[in-house]
Amino acid sequence: MSEIYRASTTAPVNIAVIKYWGKRDPSLNLPTNSSLSVTLSQSDLRTHTTASCSPTYNSDSLLLNGSPQDTSGSRTQACFRELRSLRSELEKSDASLPKLSTQKLKIVSENNFPTAAGLASSAAGFAALVRAIADLYQLTATPTELSRIARQGSGSACRSLFGGYVSWEMGSAADGSDSLATEVAPSSHWPNIRAIILVASSAKKGVSSTSGMQQTVATSELFSHRAKVLVPERMTKMKDAIKRKDFAAFAELTMRDSNGFHATCADTYPPIFYLNDTSRAAIRVVENINAAAGRSIAAYTFDAGPNAVVYYLAEDEGAVAGVFKGFLGEKEGWGSERGGKVKVVEGKDLDENAVQGLKDGVSRVILTGVGEGPISVQDHLVDEKGEAVAR
Amino acid sequence: MSEIYRASTTAPVNIAVIKYWGKRDPSLNLPTNSSLSVTLSQSDLRTHTTASCSPTYNSDSLLLNGSPQDTSGSRTQACFRELRSLRSELEKSDASLPKLSTQKLKIVSENNFPTAAGLASSAAGFAALVRAIADLYQLTATPTELSRIARQGSGSACRSLFGGYVSWEMGSAADGSDSLATEVAPSSHWPNIRAIILVASSAKKGVSSTSGMQQTVATSELFSHRAKVLVPERMTKMKDAIKRKDFAAFAELTMRDSNGFHATCADTYPPIFYLNDTSRAAIRVVENINAAAGRSIAAYTFDAGPNAVVYYLAEDEGAVAGVFKGFLGEKEGWGSERGGKVKVVEGKDLDENAVQGLKDGVSRVILTGVGEGPISVQDHLVDEKGEAVAR
Repeated sequence: MSEIYRASTTAPVNIAVIKYWGKRDPSLNLPTNSSLSVTLSQSDLRTHTTASCSPTYNSDSLLLNGSPQDTSGSRTQACFRELRSLRSELEKSDASLPKLSTQKLKIVSENNFPTAAGLASSAAGFAALVRAIADLYQLTATPTELSRIARQGSGSACRSLFGGYVSWEMGSAADGSDSLATEVAPSSHWPNIRAIILVASSAKKGVSSTSGMQQTVATSELFSHRAKVLVPERMTKMKDAIKRKDFAAFAELTMRDSNGFHATCADTYPPIFYLNDTSRAAIRVVENINAAAGRSIAAYTFDAGPNAVVYYLAEDEGAVAGVFKGFLGEKEGWGSERGGKVKVVEGKDLDENAVQGLKDGVSRVILTGVGEGPISVQDHLVDEKGEAVAR
Repeated sequence: MSEIYRASTTAPVNIAVIKYWGKRDPSLNLPTNSSLSVTLSQSDLRTHTTASCSPTYNSDSLLLNGSPQDTSGSRTQACFRELRSLRSELEKSDASLPKLSTQKLKIVSENNFPTAAGLASSAAGFAALVRAIADLYQLTATPTELSRIARQGSGSACRSLFGGYVSWEMGSAADGSDSLATEVAPSSHWPNIRAIILVASSAKKGVSSTSGMQQTVATSELFSHRAKVLVPERMTKMKDAIKRKDFAAFAELTMRDSNGFHATCADTYPPIFYLNDTSRAAIRVVENINAAAGRSIAAYTFDAGPNAVVYYLAEDEGAVAGVFKGFLGEKEGWGSERGGKVKVVEGKDLDENAVQGLKDGVSRVILTGVGEGPISVQDHLVDEKGEAVAR
């Protein structure tokens, strides 16, 4: 029986505080602006991936949460090709190495969070895929070098190769060689950032979006001003706020950038709306929480969907997550280890319509915080015979 | 018994297709950008105002829909002062004229539409007030000259002094002397523009907006690009579209400008949201209608509120208003003369969530079209004894 080669990793979700929106090169996933994210803890949200290869495999395959995925798409193919190329170089320099670069790949992946939650899982997914294959191939590439490859799978995946606070520098080279992720600060630099995710109920379904960031690039007349002028300024200020651990500055930049990103979506023709009435209710309650505190202790941000991610500091847990627990305590999610520890705090001067809007429109909450980058694990999702492990 | 002097007028509502948002001088209501509107028919929406003066009146007063209004505010005072000043000049040049400029004013006003509908009534209100007093004083000032005064009452009121298609040129003088309304084209030039207004139910109340255009000016980093670059380009294109009676161009400019205006509101810090899920549903249905027609036959626009105003041409009434009647036929408003004539048309490929959103969120419809400017009437709301007429 032929040998089965395996490597497994977990990789985190990241939620940007300076948003990626718009590609200057759609095939290479080269962005129109730099972006910056917080990596979230894998105990709450992670993808677990095993990469394996064997001369016995007949074709490349990818199983996600038990469902076969198409691997023929250009994004997955680009990752496979780049990683095989690096492996091939290694093999050429050391003839004793097994010729893994010529074998088919079997990838098995599982998320520890429901896909239905509408959380961007492609970032964690491609980061785990690239990291696991790189480990399988015993590549010496650094996370920044691997970020060039993960970016081609899914733009924001490049940021999930690091823990803590991560920037994706847009670069300027036509081949994308300098469009890479780097660590702004490790999780240990500012470990007490927490987040509560308010997952919008799919029952409260909004009107479908004619989606696509490239429509924004092509039609929004406000977009280029954001990409060229506003984001570069914010990137500098955000890195500085993180270095100084200045939460109020971090919060204001985060909220302004989310607002500005969704403004350019609304300015797209036809307009793209990701925020719904539930999202706007979350914004108002965050404003109420900050007004009651007399300073910015909570910061909302929204990706391309209605779920609010609200960042706060551990020391303000009661005043932020506790207030949400006060009126959303019946929702799913508080039973987690983090959720159970949150003390209920009665909110001051909350907008009644906003509170009712969240009660009606939030289906579950997820409590999490800043966390580490990909972690190599020995828990393989492919067994020694090369079969996917049944779970 | 002393003589009672009276003059009465009706004045129209106008709905901008290039929006006014932001003041460069708040006390003079000088805008940061020019704007352009369509005057709507007074048979559907109008303010009826009688201005009267008499030596027997003890104080200035204003009665709106039977309720006494405060006249001490700087906006109303500015209008009174400017108009009295013009009357005073006339009196100086002709000693035989009665000294109306020294008498107190009694103004009585009525709207033919419910205030609760959330339609900007201040434009029609101040236009009627200024026009009625100018008639009372027998001023020779042109509508453009009077627009300088009405603008100080309510910015967009200056556009309600004309019928048809009206621009408000922002001007550059510090005293506002060149910030005036002018006729782009009379109603007769392009008489077949129609509009359906979808009044959003107050039961579907959104989260309150932290309002204020000056917050946008102060905090939106996208706003100045709109005001300085985008609006001037659109003003030129819109005037051209109106001159050529090119509805598709008119429609696209109207929708883009509404989108861009609401984008800068969303970019305000904290963000201002006027559109709710009902508004977004209206946008999707207009997109569906245009997709079915293969060209832009309907154009949505939203002022500072959730009500959609949808412009279309009389020849497309069925394909636009008829489609709305198809699923909103039970709502109030179709019983009007215009509404009764609209033939129901079954929409093609309508977004089901959007249709449901409008069924849930629209309380009434108003059918109207382009119309005339203020009209002098003999139906006085103040009787010969100087008393408000009971209605």
